[in-house]
Amino acid sequence: MIYLDNASSTMMYDDILDKMMPFFKYRYGNPSSIHKMGRLSNTAIKNAKKQIACMINSKPEEIYITSGGTESNNTVIHGVSYNKYQNHIITSSIEHDSILLPCNKLEKNGFRVTYLEVDDNGLINTQNIEKLITDKTCLVSIMHVNNEIGTIQPIRKISEICNKKNVLFHSDTVQSAGKICIDVQNSKIDMLTLSSHKINGPKGVGALYIRNGVQLPPFIIGGGQQNGFRSGTENVANIVGFGIACKLTKTNMLKNFMHFNMLKNYLSYRILHEIPHTVLNGDSKMRASNNLNFSFLGINGEDLITKLDEYEIFVSTGSACKSNTSKASHVLKSMGLSYERINSSIRITIGIHNTMYEMKQMVVTLKKIIEELRHVSPLKHKYNFK
Amino acid sequence: MIYLDNASSTMMYDDILDKMMPFFKYRYGNPSSIHKMGRLSNTAIKNAKKQIACMINSKPEEIYITSGGTESNNTVIHGVSYNKYQNHIITSSIEHDSILLPCNKLEKNGFRVTYLEVDDNGLINTQNIEKLITDKTCLVSIMHVNNEIGTIQPIRKISEICNKKNVLFHSDTVQSAGKICIDVQNSKIDMLTLSSHKINGPKGVGALYIRNGVQLPPFIIGGGQQNGFRSGTENVANIVGFGIACKLTKTNMLKNFMHFNMLKNYLSYRILHEIPHTVLNGDSKMRASNNLNFSFLGINGEDLITKLDEYEIFVSTGSACKSNTSKASHVLKSMGLSYERINSSIRITIGIHNTMYEMKQMVVTLKKIIEELRHVSPLKHKYNFK
Repeated sequence: MIYLDNASSTMMYDDILDKMMPFFKYRYGNPSSIHKMGRLSNTAIKNAKKQIACMINSKPEEIYITSGGTESNNTVIHGVSYNKYQNHIITSSIEHDSILLPCNKLEKNGFRVTYLEVDDNGLINTQNIEKLITDKTCLVSIMHVNNEIGTIQPIRKISEICNKKNVLFHSDTVQSAGKICIDVQNSKIDMLTLSSHKINGPKGVGALYIRNGVQLPPFIIGGGQQNGFRSGTENVANIVGFGIACKLTKTNMLKNFMHFNMLKNYLSYRILHEIPHTVLNGDSKMRASNNLNFSFLGINGEDLITKLDEYEIFVSTGSACKSNTSKASHVLKSMGLSYERINSSIRITIGIHNTMYEMKQMVVTLKKIIEELRHVSPLKHKYNFK
Repeated sequence: MIYLDNASSTMMYDDILDKMMPFFKYRYGNPSSIHKMGRLSNTAIKNAKKQIACMINSKPEEIYITSGGTESNNTVIHGVSYNKYQNHIITSSIEHDSILLPCNKLEKNGFRVTYLEVDDNGLINTQNIEKLITDKTCLVSIMHVNNEIGTIQPIRKISEICNKKNVLFHSDTVQSAGKICIDVQNSKIDMLTLSSHKINGPKGVGALYIRNGVQLPPFIIGGGQQNGFRSGTENVANIVGFGIACKLTKTNMLKNFMHFNMLKNYLSYRILHEIPHTVLNGDSKMRASNNLNFSFLGINGEDLITKLDEYEIFVSTGSACKSNTSKASHVLKSMGLSYERINSSIRITIGIHNTMYEMKQMVVTLKKIIEELRHVSPLKHKYNFK
């Protein structure tokens, strides 16, 4: 098996499960209970929040645990919707749907949303942002790394503009965490979304960082957990796992970066040189160290994935969230790519457990399958496929 | 250690963790991915939904996974808030805060909410409901079993009224699942809230049952998971655990019921007969098989919990969610109990792992501590304590 769909979900670090075990087995107290069993759970959450905070250089009390990236993103957009005087949001056309859909919803309720366009490499023009901010703008939300094409947006520059203009800045860093150093102090980020299972932690848990002083109404309300900001009994074991994942992600950042880059560069070089009519989608430089997105012209991306699946090689078209629908990627469409290029695209995302041997196997298999698929392609004659 | 706070959280069934393990270790695919790794995760979720559905006699496609009871309850109230023509909700004054707080919020947005009062045993007068329903009523939401006093509300009767009046009926069954047989067909329930960690499953996962045909807008939106009703990558391992918990809960229902009842009756008899000035809060008959809530007059409930904690006996005052705040229980207040009775109350909730030996130990320790506390009580002379 060669798993190259690490932007969809990742294998956990080996050590994490051991640390989660006590909270599944015998430390099952509700963290809100005042007795010892409750306090043990509560302390574990506090420790995890320290580890999460440490990864992004925030304070532990600025970390709120959620059920994942989607809830964190929803919480931000829901939160600013309470702003009575400012009803303008600036975001980009290539954000994740957990930002875009809540924004679409707000538009129906009188909000104005500006969706920044991207160039054909998927990069946002930051020069426009300053001009677009008005005294009605309550939020700028720009993802750090795009989930489909891995493009890195200049969030530091954007945050400086927002800071100057006194507008809240949120960044969805679900795909950048572990790939690029994130420092909320240095980058002056007001709110930030994290997801555990994208950084080799367990699923079902994420975080929202909210800078001290930023007022955001809660989204999920009830028992008053997490200082009233996020109610519901905390998912203690998974939070503990998320904490360790953040710790290991921070510790191994440089090592992983070099590992990702080495495998990515090898794979990219060989694919682009050995498979004709292949195009890399997204920027070649401003790109996450683990992301590759190719269009193999003349074939259908889904057919390719299905064929690779038979060889136990796992990749995806666009984002996992949308892969079970037949909608064309809104990201590639925003970049102005042709239907043919969108239709023939696949995403390869490298993880910490991948090896150079797997990359070599991947190239061999990919070449074989693409040759077969192109042989029966309806576009065979257009490209002179054999 | 004697853990008697099972309404706050429970120890998992032994078998569950083994079944969750593959999804933490090597079946880490995103359930939305179309490749084999994704399909394996997706199939596991489908199986779990069948097990959850089976417990309440619904169809699997009527089950939506959430991050827990709080999110499920919030989803219902948020959902009906989109009703343009009907802006009246009927609920009770003793619901969980994850129902009450969203209702309070809707009141600020033009909704009218009727909070049904309860008698001094915590029972709702169902005769009023029919009269209170108007053509503006969009929802009746009544919990099955109260989390603090264990009172069982006649939800079948209420559902019949709602059915007759053509009004949606939701029930928070977080505390009744596993204690009372729930059958959504038989009881004509339209929506129902479940939580995994209250029935010996893992934390961080719950469900909302929505009867086929009931139109409810989604709460958390984005990638379109679960037919677009609840977005966000599913917490596969915990969902698998929740499924098994439901299966075991259904299988062991009668055995557990008898076990709970035996321990509860023993404990209740001895406490009421051997500790003077003790009152049972809540109804003695219409009560969950695992819940006891006593007021030991003349002492402070929190002092008692702290002392029991020293003996590694774990109980709570009211609900865990509120136990780390100093607010008096809204449930006991609604029942019209005196401050003294509220202040001296503790909740004892029995679980599947408790034993008769533990009950005997509990009585011995409780008697000893209460005697000590009453000896130094400011109300010593009022009650002629030694």
